[in-house]
Amino acid sequence: MNLMEADTFYSDTYAVETMDTIYSNDYPIYFENSLNELVKFVEQGNYSRFFVLTDENTGKYCLPLLKEKFGSMADFDIIEINAGEESKDIDFCIGVWKMLIDFGADRQSLLINLGGGVISDLGGFVASTFKRGIDFVHVPTTLLSQVDASVGGKTGIDIDSIKNIIGTFTQPKAVFIEYSFIKTLPERQILSGLAEMLKHGLIRDASYWNLLKNSDLKKPAAELIYLSIGIKNKVVIEDPQERGLRKCLNFGHTIGHAVETYSLINDEDPLSHGEAIAIGMICEAYLSYKKTGLTESELAEITEVLSGLYPKYPLKESYNDALYDLMLKDKKNHKEKINCTLLATIGQCSIDHICAKDELFESLAYYSNL
Amino acid sequence: MNLMEADTFYSDTYAVETMDTIYSNDYPIYFENSLNELVKFVEQGNYSRFFVLTDENTGKYCLPLLKEKFGSMADFDIIEINAGEESKDIDFCIGVWKMLIDFGADRQSLLINLGGGVISDLGGFVASTFKRGIDFVHVPTTLLSQVDASVGGKTGIDIDSIKNIIGTFTQPKAVFIEYSFIKTLPERQILSGLAEMLKHGLIRDASYWNLLKNSDLKKPAAELIYLSIGIKNKVVIEDPQERGLRKCLNFGHTIGHAVETYSLINDEDPLSHGEAIAIGMICEAYLSYKKTGLTESELAEITEVLSGLYPKYPLKESYNDALYDLMLKDKKNHKEKINCTLLATIGQCSIDHICAKDELFESLAYYSNL
Repeated sequence: MNLMEADTFYSDTYAVETMDTIYSNDYPIYFENSLNELVKFVEQGNYSRFFVLTDENTGKYCLPLLKEKFGSMADFDIIEINAGEESKDIDFCIGVWKMLIDFGADRQSLLINLGGGVISDLGGFVASTFKRGIDFVHVPTTLLSQVDASVGGKTGIDIDSIKNIIGTFTQPKAVFIEYSFIKTLPERQILSGLAEMLKHGLIRDASYWNLLKNSDLKKPAAELIYLSIGIKNKVVIEDPQERGLRKCLNFGHTIGHAVETYSLINDEDPLSHGEAIAIGMICEAYLSYKKTGLTESELAEITEVLSGLYPKYPLKESYNDALYDLMLKDKKNHKEKINCTLLATIGQCSIDHICAKDELFESLAYYSNL
Repeated sequence: MNLMEADTFYSDTYAVETMDTIYSNDYPIYFENSLNELVKFVEQGNYSRFFVLTDENTGKYCLPLLKEKFGSMADFDIIEINAGEESKDIDFCIGVWKMLIDFGADRQSLLINLGGGVISDLGGFVASTFKRGIDFVHVPTTLLSQVDASVGGKTGIDIDSIKNIIGTFTQPKAVFIEYSFIKTLPERQILSGLAEMLKHGLIRDASYWNLLKNSDLKKPAAELIYLSIGIKNKVVIEDPQERGLRKCLNFGHTIGHAVETYSLINDEDPLSHGEAIAIGMICEAYLSYKKTGLTESELAEITEVLSGLYPKYPLKESYNDALYDLMLKDKKNHKEKINCTLLATIGQCSIDHICAKDELFESLAYYSNL
């Protein structure tokens, strides 16, 4: 399906009249005519040079549109990496730093991160540390990066497959959301982003959750993406450094990240981020039912929606110890206790719950027995 | 010479009545009873763990004193690296990150950087990026790190011998200046730090320059160190991100860094930072005489003081192109023009002077012909 054909697909509309620019921590997130806004941003910025970080997929599908928009200004250097989480490893990060050195990038350079979460996490980290920081903007091309990595100012890379173990809190100068990019994505990638959208409803907005679960989730409308970013933005502007409230965004991620890393290390075709987070949300909804007052029917509803959307992963009891070790390496822990964000009810989260090993294993068993 | 013997050495006093704590960008720099203050800082902080980053030298000469001060609290893990600039390479940085992972460091951990500039630059970068940032403090053990790296919030590591090409602006939580550490340093290390102290006089305070040049510079008194830090601190609190004024600290460094890197790559016994910066200051004083109004007698005075203190380096004309290439990689440049900080007069600098290749080569020839 090409972009022209895709235009006729996503036709649902919701209670969103216009998709005005959202302002996050001092930077704008553009939705309308976003690539034209990007060209304007570069034109008006006092940059000596600009570079585009991309991967083999976005280089093929999205870069041509960018070049077309820039027209005669498209004299940027391109840094292309392999698609996939492996490219977030420190070794690839060093490769990107070296390319900037070789291209002669100076402190007044701009880095445009054109791609999914790997590109924005890695590109943000590279830019925030190159010559002690150059400007960067994101042009997220996957649903996941549009609703997640575009807001929050987190950058990160992996060491030894430990996700985002190294990173900074650095805000981009702007984010440009181009809806047409997601229309050509394979369904599995749409579902990966959807998990974060569902999470935004679960932790903060029951009516958004209800809206989502009654939508055609395999083809999310632009307005649903806009609303999702709006929810995340509300959370992060109140707590940019993740000292308190922002921890609610970690719902599903303590267990989800461990499952994701486990799969990355052991599976030939590893789980996507969203697939892993969906497992994490089911397990942590179970913990919420046990510990923080989520009702049995809410647990059943969450389980039904998520297991209806995502394929079952064959979690075995024999994985438990390895998963627990991975959870111990999670950044959110304090003094080697596993810290989870749970739900008080659908639409309201409850942060800082220490979960014991046997509770965590029980929640994994709940998922396995579905 | 041990610490007890050294106590009787540095007896000059200056117009400094007490060495009160200096406040930099929201963090204190302690001079009096500084190691006791460090113990108090750790006691009062809500840290889950603390780690000491050290090298083989400070591990031998300074760590025992630290352990003694901490007494029964001295249950910290030690991360020891090799002494020397080579340890600032990204590969060693990865090694330190991995040790923190292996030790199970969490976000509430504290890193104590006990050592010279390599330790504070590397340790600051490691801490500012580990799990997106943990707290760190500096206990600088060389004269250079006491007067330079302790103030300013710059962290940095090297790639391919390009100094500080990767780093962040992140402030330590506190700095603890222990004067007794420098009393046992070899003279060459004292002289390395002295170059930055002389620079502080040249760029900002003629009376401090006069005080210094009439002192026994091989045994600098505590008060001179205190005054030097005070000058640097005034500059950085006005411009923490190096957007303008702070560039005055780069006097001597455009040429000096290039000479330092050249020597690091090519010499068996490379120049110290101060030795290289002294060469840079002589060359850039010459450029100041040519371009920004430094008088001939001021140039002669600066040249005499610096060349009296530091050994002559056999700079050859055949090095020029390699040095120029290194200058082009300097972070301070914009659009491939070499940007120097020069002097208007002794005690007053003048920033943002583009220097042409032939001017730079002429200044190198001035040094060579001394």
